[in-house]
Amino acid sequence: MVTQKTIGILGASGYTGAELVRLLLRHPRVDLKVLTADRRAGQSMGDVFPQLAPYDLPRLVAIDDIDWAGVGLDLVFCALPHATTQKVLKDLLAKAPATRVVDLSADFRLRDPAAYAKWYGHEHHALELQKEAVYGLVEMYRREIKAARLIANPGCYTTCAQLPLLPLLKAKAIETDGIVVDAKSGVTGAGRSAKEEMLFCEVSDGFHAYGVGGHRHMAELDQEFSKAAGREVVVSFTPHLVPMNRGILSTIYVRGRRGRTAEDLHAIVSERYAREPFVHVLPFGKTPQTRHVRGSNMTLIGVAADRIPGRAILVSTLDNLTKGASGQAVQNMNLVLGFPETMGIDQPPMFP
Amino acid sequence: MVTQKTIGILGASGYTGAELVRLLLRHPRVDLKVLTADRRAGQSMGDVFPQLAPYDLPRLVAIDDIDWAGVGLDLVFCALPHATTQKVLKDLLAKAPATRVVDLSADFRLRDPAAYAKWYGHEHHALELQKEAVYGLVEMYRREIKAARLIANPGCYTTCAQLPLLPLLKAKAIETDGIVVDAKSGVTGAGRSAKEEMLFCEVSDGFHAYGVGGHRHMAELDQEFSKAAGREVVVSFTPHLVPMNRGILSTIYVRGRRGRTAEDLHAIVSERYAREPFVHVLPFGKTPQTRHVRGSNMTLIGVAADRIPGRAILVSTLDNLTKGASGQAVQNMNLVLGFPETMGIDQPPMFP
Amino acid sequence: MVTQKTIGILGASGYTGAELVRLLLRHPRVDLKVLTADRRAGQSMGDVFPQLAPYDLPRLVAIDDIDWAGVGLDLVFCALPHATTQKVLKDLLAKAPATRVVDLSADFRLRDPAAYAKWYGHEHHALELQKEAVYGLVEMYRREIKAARLIANPGCYTTCAQLPLLPLLKAKAIETDGIVVDAKSGVTGAGRSAKEEMLFCEVSDGFHAYGVGGHRHMAELDQEFSKAAGREVVVSFTPHLVPMNRGILSTIYVRGRRGRTAEDLHAIVSERYAREPFVHVLPFGKTPQTRHVRGSNMTLIGVAADRIPGRAILVSTLDNLTKGASGQAVQNMNLVLGFPETMGIDQPPMFP
Amino acid sequence: MVTQKTIGILGASGYTGAELVRLLLRHPRVDLKVLTADRRAGQSMGDVFPQLAPYDLPRLVAIDDIDWAGVGLDLVFCALPHATTQKVLKDLLAKAPATRVVDLSADFRLRDPAAYAKWYGHEHHALELQKEAVYGLVEMYRREIKAARLIANPGCYTTCAQLPLLPLLKAKAIETDGIVVDAKSGVTGAGRSAKEEMLFCEVSDGFHAYGVGGHRHMAELDQEFSKAAGREVVVSFTPHLVPMNRGILSTIYVRGRRGRTAEDLHAIVSERYAREPFVHVLPFGKTPQTRHVRGSNMTLIGVAADRIPGRAILVSTLDNLTKGASGQAVQNMNLVLGFPETMGIDQPPMFP
Repeated sequence: MVTQKTIGILGASGYTGAELVRLLLRHPRVDLKVLTADRRAGQSMGDVFPQLAPYDLPRLVAIDDIDWAGVGLDLVFCALPHATTQKVLKDLLAKAPATRVVDLSADFRLRDPAAYAKWYGHEHHALELQKEAVYGLVEMYRREIKAARLIANPGCYTTCAQLPLLPLLKAKAIETDGIVVDAKSGVTGAGRSAKEEMLFCEVSDGFHAYGVGGHRHMAELDQEFSKAAGREVVVSFTPHLVPMNRGILSTIYVRGRRGRTAEDLHAIVSERYAREPFVHVLPFGKTPQTRHVRGSNMTLIGVAADRIPGRAILVSTLDNLTKGASGQAVQNMNLVLGFPETMGIDQPPMFP
Repeated sequence: MVTQKTIGILGASGYTGAELVRLLLRHPRVDLKVLTADRRAGQSMGDVFPQLAPYDLPRLVAIDDIDWAGVGLDLVFCALPHATTQKVLKDLLAKAPATRVVDLSADFRLRDPAAYAKWYGHEHHALELQKEAVYGLVEMYRREIKAARLIANPGCYTTCAQLPLLPLLKAKAIETDGIVVDAKSGVTGAGRSAKEEMLFCEVSDGFHAYGVGGHRHMAELDQEFSKAAGREVVVSFTPHLVPMNRGILSTIYVRGRRGRTAEDLHAIVSERYAREPFVHVLPFGKTPQTRHVRGSNMTLIGVAADRIPGRAILVSTLDNLTKGASGQAVQNMNLVLGFPETMGIDQPPMFP
Repeated sequence: MVTQKTIGILGASGYTGAELVRLLLRHPRVDLKVLTADRRAGQSMGDVFPQLAPYDLPRLVAIDDIDWAGVGLDLVFCALPHATTQKVLKDLLAKAPATRVVDLSADFRLRDPAAYAKWYGHEHHALELQKEAVYGLVEMYRREIKAARLIANPGCYTTCAQLPLLPLLKAKAIETDGIVVDAKSGVTGAGRSAKEEMLFCEVSDGFHAYGVGGHRHMAELDQEFSKAAGREVVVSFTPHLVPMNRGILSTIYVRGRRGRTAEDLHAIVSERYAREPFVHVLPFGKTPQTRHVRGSNMTLIGVAADRIPGRAILVSTLDNLTKGASGQAVQNMNLVLGFPETMGIDQPPMFP
Repeated sequence: MVTQKTIGILGASGYTGAELVRLLLRHPRVDLKVLTADRRAGQSMGDVFPQLAPYDLPRLVAIDDIDWAGVGLDLVFCALPHATTQKVLKDLLAKAPATRVVDLSADFRLRDPAAYAKWYGHEHHALELQKEAVYGLVEMYRREIKAARLIANPGCYTTCAQLPLLPLLKAKAIETDGIVVDAKSGVTGAGRSAKEEMLFCEVSDGFHAYGVGGHRHMAELDQEFSKAAGREVVVSFTPHLVPMNRGILSTIYVRGRRGRTAEDLHAIVSERYAREPFVHVLPFGKTPQTRHVRGSNMTLIGVAADRIPGRAILVSTLDNLTKGASGQAVQNMNLVLGFPETMGIDQPPMFP
């Protein structure tokens, strides 16, 4: 008989929490045992997310009420806000050191404590864990992830930019200066907290850039791009808000190096992902739409020639709540717990 | 070893066709063997629906190029337009009489040839099949469906109105005159053909009623409501278009009969659906939202007291592409082929 | 030379405040002298509503910092929340009794203090003003409004329901029981305060009813409908939320009295509004869309026959921020200050 | 007494036609005398655009039924498709040579017949007129426009990109290679013709790029950018489709030349437009939203520093139907007919 692994979700009342539940409810090997939401403790998930009312789920509890050693979870997803995360996980892993953790916050993504302190304005509160953490971009760190206890699940913007660019940087196929990543995100990326600028009437029927010229998540891009290229890489990056629920699309402008054409770049990316279950490269010249990955864990990448000789335009897209957050987190869980990598996250996109 | 049943989809290039593919790709007991689309014959499904490009699916063919006897399909979903359907199925069942059929058009929903002729303006072209067809509202005709060869899958508007009202009419718990069904639908209900009034700019950021005072699908309502009540029932029904992709919501105004209160009506509906996997009745006074059934086969029903004594307001919702079309069609297929009823259609809703 | 009247807007940082500014910026006879917003005092309107940054407008002030007697405004629009309104206006009119006031809150709409106490749960704080206030539904109370000091601008839902129904109730052309008003509103109706349920992702791509069976604004409907009919009239009324910014649409189900047909009802409504600048009745059988009144002060009304003999379906629509709030408020101002009634509010709808 | 000028609109059944009518209905100096729409000839504007039903407008006629010499229009707006335009205007100006024309198509925007032939695949059919035409970007060609008979109204994408970039290119303040214009448009830009890819369900709740690497309108950009810079300038340009009705936003990546900082670029742009009624430059570091120009003729421009030293990011936005088409066309008409430049197009944006 197949045994189930016991799972907890910390911060289950946010969108990434709900998305984890959606995916795990159909995962054949896990048992959702603990769901936390401090401000909604005592309520059912159906009170917080009515779409889950028909399902049999544990009641929400407060984190402080959990006996980590006693409950003995196999794996915990942590979908808590920045900074809180460090404290909670430090405590959890001290009391129940055998627990595996997939953390969806940005707290453990930076390897360099100095970079962390610079971008976040304070010392890291769990330096030992920061050293231990493995960056959870599956397509790049699959081997390390399998052996990890603490996985830092990548950000949605950064996953969408890394998947097309990393193979090109590693192959030294593009110039490392002058790269432009123009990124557009759906509104779930902002989470569920009530803010005036995320009200329907402030977001619908319009479009805008935000955080122009400076965005905290760039540190994660700098780290991985520089590592891949073997030299410092800093890209221009502008996030925008699209009046849609889910999806990120990045339009990326690059120059081929040493005569590399757009076709050459397409060949490199295509070959790199030929056997990846969650990255699909379109035929040369075709570019993807966010709606064609909605609800799925798939990433679509297109490569086209710019009309300026020697330049190429890449377009990549993924669902920020699945491959950009909860889906990739389940993919990490599958690796860590020894399940088939695609288990529970193999459903096709929902379009329309 | 588990054997697969072979399946065909006629009219796979429309939205209900794509939705059937989405659901069946994860169904463990079926093999999608034939996909037709006359105008797109020769193309791949990924050409027509890019979200399906990463999947291994048969190429689209024209219906006339299929050798029905030779291909020996176990079951065919028919998602063709009205009238065409009659001719195609007549031919198909003549050549391959052992094939089971779930028809998603309105062609076989009316039992009375006179009613059909009145609403559609011509005689039915396949009268024998019309007699044979079983109406596929699973919660009402489960037993008949299991034995049927040809199933007329109900309409989306009518499923959404029937599920809350049929138990009340059968119990003679509400007055049969003065019932108002005010229905609102997402835009996928209009299909994928290019019409000016379905352009983004004609539909977005607005709302309107259409077909006020007369709508072809009412014949189906009249038939089932009258049968349930044991007397002629004609309701006021107005469809509206909501700027959303999926979902139908019906707001239904009724008067209790013989002192029946709104609570009484809630009790009747709750009891009726207590063991149904795809109908969930909310606690008294709560009403549902379309987004909480998005992508799932679930129907949510709420019952509340009107402020006018003796009157109640029911609100029901379902996803017009799943429980209102392709999901219910798979539910019918599961019954016909002897699979567990929820197989392949048990995924939770996608919200947000 | 034409003199300008001086105008104040209390509560200018909300959507109705911004809409008043939009309309009044192009009104040739008014001078916007005072704009208040307690929490944004000291900021410019462009800080609060960037679309107004290019315009020359007074800086926002706190209400308590205004010397009502000294500033000597000709007219004040009050767009403050319920209850606050009563206190502010009592104080204002005590200190500057010659000021005319158009109040956009619900505070002065009910004539009966007992009805007010019942629906709002407390005694009215400005009983004398309540008695003095004139209900500002222009098409019905034009004469009284011209002479009034304090005008209670009607609600958006209630204006949309009253305009089609009042002429029929006055003419005793429809049965007064069994009337159903199924109403749908855009999201601006909920105002600009940050609430989880009004976030983009909670509202977009979906539809739902709210406040089913009980809604505070019904008191206003009961009052005006009963007055028109000369007997108590209580209608079934359900509000719904549409994923659109602006617009209200009411679908209204009635039975003709004494053989009145839908055509008869259409004739009554058409004749009643033949000379009204802001009510347009469509040809019999046609029904309107919200998007065709977007941004304008127009109300569109359609009347169609139900398929049930003797019954009719009326559909009315208006923009909740213009005819449903700020536009009607300017219409009231025009009457009160002796300007042409359509001045400043005669721009055509914006579609698409 | 003020005399009215007589005006015609060719192609009044499209979105730019409707927008012209919306603006001109409130213009105090024009008389809308002729409206054409070949396929809708004989119908009223209210049949084609129900929001215009309450207005008194001439009935639609076919172009071939107009006696150009006899009707004696002062000015004609031409909103016809590419190529048709050339033939119609050649004929019109031959028969009524004193007519002024503002053409909204792309037919007369290119000065170089060879460039035209290259991009459009055929010789120009009205070479003489092409030579005569003046490019109608008002802020750049105000003097030439006043004297022109035939004005080529600029495209929406190109207006949005030119207004921020032209002053910088003229000042030689930025490098001319490596400029990236990442542009995003609302759906009205695609017009009103019924195409599958513009259906609500294909556009809503998603985002995508199109025409990557090649777009016909780039020829217009190349022409004006190169002229401004005094050398050939070719920019990377990618258009995207946003699920919104109106609005274009361009995110533009540049490098300062000879030590020019982002602040320097901001100063140049700010000074250039200080006295322009329809261009507003935001404070340094702030960037605009499309919704804050909705329905108005305003262009908003923001300039921010990139985090990469020496680089800047500009964001510009306008409403593609007003400043990007019909509003700028009226602005051109005002110049040509000697009216104040802002007449009829001075209404504030509509937000929300």
